[in-house]
Amino acid sequence: METNTNTTLQTVITSEELLAHWQGHRNLTRRVIEAFSEKDLFNFSIGGMRPFSEMVVELLAIATPGIKEIVTGKTAAFNEDINHENKKEKLLEIWDKTTEDINAYWPQIKPEQFHDTIKSFGEYEGTVWSSIFYFIDNEIHHRGQAYVYLRALNIEPPFFYER
Amino acid sequence: METNTNTTLQTVITSEELLAHWQGHRNLTRRVIEAFSEKDLFNFSIGGMRPFSEMVVELLAIATPGIKEIVTGKTAAFNEDINHENKKEKLLEIWDKTTEDINAYWPQIKPEQFHDTIKSFGEYEGTVWSSIFYFIDNEIHHRGQAYVYLRALNIEPPFFYER
Repeated sequence: METNTNTTLQTVITSEELLAHWQGHRNLTRRVIEAFSEKDLFNFSIGGMRPFSEMVVELLAIATPGIKEIVTGKTAAFNEDINHENKKEKLLEIWDKTTEDINAYWPQIKPEQFHDTIKSFGEYEGTVWSSIFYFIDNEIHHRGQAYVYLRALNIEPPFFYER
Repeated sequence: METNTNTTLQTVITSEELLAHWQGHRNLTRRVIEAFSEKDLFNFSIGGMRPFSEMVVELLAIATPGIKEIVTGKTAAFNEDINHENKKEKLLEIWDKTTEDINAYWPQIKPEQFHDTIKSFGEYEGTVWSSIFYFIDNEIHHRGQAYVYLRALNIEPPFFYER
């Protein structure tokens, strides 16, 4: 018993905390999607970059498939073919489905798996933890870009620290 | 011995890995600072946001003082009064000094400290781990904004995945 207690206490972050951390970020990203008008979500861009909708498609193509791969050990090619019909409502619907799917798959990641070496989407080598951190960091990175889009559109983005 | 081995193997991320992860991000941020001309670093902005130099000052004001607080337990008010003389070279010099300081303080964080509750800068309550994650996430967030500035300036930013 004491060993278990110490293990938890000496852990930087637990698996459950990492899930909550990510879903907190995903909750913020959802509100950033909502802050755009449908037209700007699918069309507005700066400096030849993608509209935010296309970055969101990338995030959706990474999240569930990335975690599913870790859990099942079955690799699939990266696939951004997501049918959002150019509708904000549809994109949010897929976002919410992804939230549920991540929550369903996550508890199947075994604690001893986090330092295993994997190749996400058959291409990107790393450990399970570094891959998951990449998924989260990549979301923060692109959402930060969406903040500039919103500011350029004269829209106040949600507070970064509210998750 | 076996208990220790299992503890490491079942950890999502070790303290040393988290440090390397952050310094990898900081290395990328340094290259993003370098990618700006001095004039644009201190002046260019979009949508009424701060120039990237001011965001960098925020990151510098958080990094060493934030970790120092965790290690020493001595709280200090948040202070962005950093003397960069409006020079890119000076900002990079302070950046590199911060890299060394973080490396020096970090090993003094005790493993059992990561779940302690703290109040960063006497204001922001969280655990040690959530505070450090905030420092890192906030850096990724603002650096993502700098990517849009660079693209708007027709400058190719460094690859996000190269740390």
